[in-house]
Amino acid sequence: MADFGLTRRLANAKGGKILLLVMDGLGGLPREQGGLTELETAHTPNLDRLAQEGCVGLSIPVARGVAPGSGPAHLGLFGYDPLVYDIGRGVLEAMGVGLLLNPTDVAVRGNFVTVDADGKITDRRAGRIPTEKGAELVEKLKAITLPGVKIDVTVVKEYRFALVFRGEGLSGEVADTDPQATGVEPLPARPLKPEAQHMADLANQWIAQAKEILKNDAPANMLTLRGFSVDPNLPKFADVYKLKSACVAVYPMYKGVSKLVGMDLIETDAHDTPADEFRRVANIWQDYDFVFCHIKYTDSRGEDGNFDAKVKIIEDVDTALPILLDLKPDVLIVTGDHSTPATFKAHSWHPVPTLLWAPGVHMTDRATAFGERECMTGALGQFPATDLIMYALAHARRLEKYGA
Amino acid sequence: MADFGLTRRLANAKGGKILLLVMDGLGGLPREQGGLTELETAHTPNLDRLAQEGCVGLSIPVARGVAPGSGPAHLGLFGYDPLVYDIGRGVLEAMGVGLLLNPTDVAVRGNFVTVDADGKITDRRAGRIPTEKGAELVEKLKAITLPGVKIDVTVVKEYRFALVFRGEGLSGEVADTDPQATGVEPLPARPLKPEAQHMADLANQWIAQAKEILKNDAPANMLTLRGFSVDPNLPKFADVYKLKSACVAVYPMYKGVSKLVGMDLIETDAHDTPADEFRRVANIWQDYDFVFCHIKYTDSRGEDGNFDAKVKIIEDVDTALPILLDLKPDVLIVTGDHSTPATFKAHSWHPVPTLLWAPGVHMTDRATAFGERECMTGALGQFPATDLIMYALAHARRLEKYGA
Repeated sequence: MADFGLTRRLANAKGGKILLLVMDGLGGLPREQGGLTELETAHTPNLDRLAQEGCVGLSIPVARGVAPGSGPAHLGLFGYDPLVYDIGRGVLEAMGVGLLLNPTDVAVRGNFVTVDADGKITDRRAGRIPTEKGAELVEKLKAITLPGVKIDVTVVKEYRFALVFRGEGLSGEVADTDPQATGVEPLPARPLKPEAQHMADLANQWIAQAKEILKNDAPANMLTLRGFSVDPNLPKFADVYKLKSACVAVYPMYKGVSKLVGMDLIETDAHDTPADEFRRVANIWQDYDFVFCHIKYTDSRGEDGNFDAKVKIIEDVDTALPILLDLKPDVLIVTGDHSTPATFKAHSWHPVPTLLWAPGVHMTDRATAFGERECMTGALGQFPATDLIMYALAHARRLEKYGA
Repeated sequence: MADFGLTRRLANAKGGKILLLVMDGLGGLPREQGGLTELETAHTPNLDRLAQEGCVGLSIPVARGVAPGSGPAHLGLFGYDPLVYDIGRGVLEAMGVGLLLNPTDVAVRGNFVTVDADGKITDRRAGRIPTEKGAELVEKLKAITLPGVKIDVTVVKEYRFALVFRGEGLSGEVADTDPQATGVEPLPARPLKPEAQHMADLANQWIAQAKEILKNDAPANMLTLRGFSVDPNLPKFADVYKLKSACVAVYPMYKGVSKLVGMDLIETDAHDTPADEFRRVANIWQDYDFVFCHIKYTDSRGEDGNFDAKVKIIEDVDTALPILLDLKPDVLIVTGDHSTPATFKAHSWHPVPTLLWAPGVHMTDRATAFGERECMTGALGQFPATDLIMYALAHARRLEKYGA
């Protein structure tokens, strides 16, 4: 499947409209032995009705037992095997802060570090300076210019920043300058292939200027660069699925991944509620075959360890759901990219509750509500997330028969 | 997964302790239509409680429909794809009788055969002589010595024996001497690669001496050699999973497979009961991250076709289980390597009941007991046995997140 040979062969450009609603980190765990999960706790009459009419199952994001990051997890939902399409750290970091990449751009992840009087690293994370401090230093770094390239730099979090070189003749084949150790100097940027010499030279010039700018900013008085990488040039939805597709998401990371697979990015506002996002979906619905709508805060509240707040977000989504249902999608899928149990305060490996509703087309199982336990015995079974798109296309009657 | 790239990348050396309890041939079938299996029949209050608190599923040992031998089935449980890691017959046979292998040793499987006055084979299994007779002949073969090598030979069963050459410069690249036909002489040992000439010469010298020794022992008056093979040099648990691991097993085969993957072998007694084995686990528990404990007699009684006796073994295990529970493992997995339904009197392909208990970390399903039917709708679903180790590592919090 990983090369899309099957979808290229079977997908046709006509068929129903597909709506993929992803509640980030949807899957959860009970707070106490035998209790209910976040999704099971939430009062969700709309989702429950869809589960009752449609069918449910559990999706395995990357591999059994593996907790994925958001990038790989979304690639999986989009049908791109995250073990095959391994996106560089620089690209992920840049996407995460909304630095979109053109094909010739090189993205890099940066760390502020502390060096001593000899230039040797004493703290690889610069004492975990607060994000405000990181942002302030990044502002200073914006003064750096180099001939022939445009440079974007944006704070990510604390001591981390994203850096993008835009220009011609660049390359991602440059080794990390982070020596992964203290007591030694940062490494110079070195080309991993001959054609990356120019990129390495530019990086070293940029580092030299940055070093001068930061010299009095201890503990963040130096930096290291990691994960030089370029747009992985993923196959695009239009090519491999024959789908005209759009993304409605608030967070940059999800916009970034969507752009990598060829989705149009619909403008959103950082303060959009689920209902706001759903209205944006409605606004563009007639123009697309496939719309991906991303709800971030289920994951955020899970990461916070706030079980009740995660329940509340799920309920907000359920309440706003009629906005999407009024669009009468031919296929509606509700799932998560991974689980983020509030009890974990982190992404986990647990398979993700998934609901598929396609009136007249889906199988019917015995699920009476949308929740982890109901999904364990649903018609979709447990399946690799990368297969979800096949179900979406099939239920939209967009896949030809295989063979005679 | 087969190359352990993912576990090498994600596994970290810290985390919870894992206990893998394997009841050999655990899975079974009802004696009559609609009846209960061996496991369902057994009174197992401890296992049932663990199933209720934890989660269950069915493991597929090698591939759907394939009944595995014990070697491949255990490799699968340990996360080594048995279709990739195909261990030589000689090695399996040697392991099965407790002949442990050093990296430079060559193991061979031998058959006593009957030859006529012209030296042509008339019976490739020497009339299936009883094991006692085989043992007696093997004793005579121990007299054979060759310069520069140490030779171990041990009866396996009836006409079969295991032979190990220990020394330097040996090779497993030697063709079988078994012509796979009667009416022809045994073949000489021939090197498959030039560097195996020395090994072939040694084998031929050994055969010549054996022929002389056996000449008056018809029907076992000659022998053939098959499956010359060396330790397959499997990746080790410490490398691929970062686990310090130990094996508590009574039967040689299981010790052998465990040694191949790098486990320490804990001394046991041939007459150990499940409770005895569990106490041995307790004795070494503090020294290891991962302990594999193997119970043989569920399989043996299944092979005997003795349904009630298999039930009894399962109940004995359940009764002794508190010895393991007192260790408070972070992850406890109870499973089989394959099914051995008493109605089959043989290994079968049926997926194997599996229980995973990791308080606070596992999903909760609706299972109320440990049995085949309960496992069919459990949270673990049906999964390849090779994924079990991923679940074990994940629930022990030993796997890093995949990607950002």
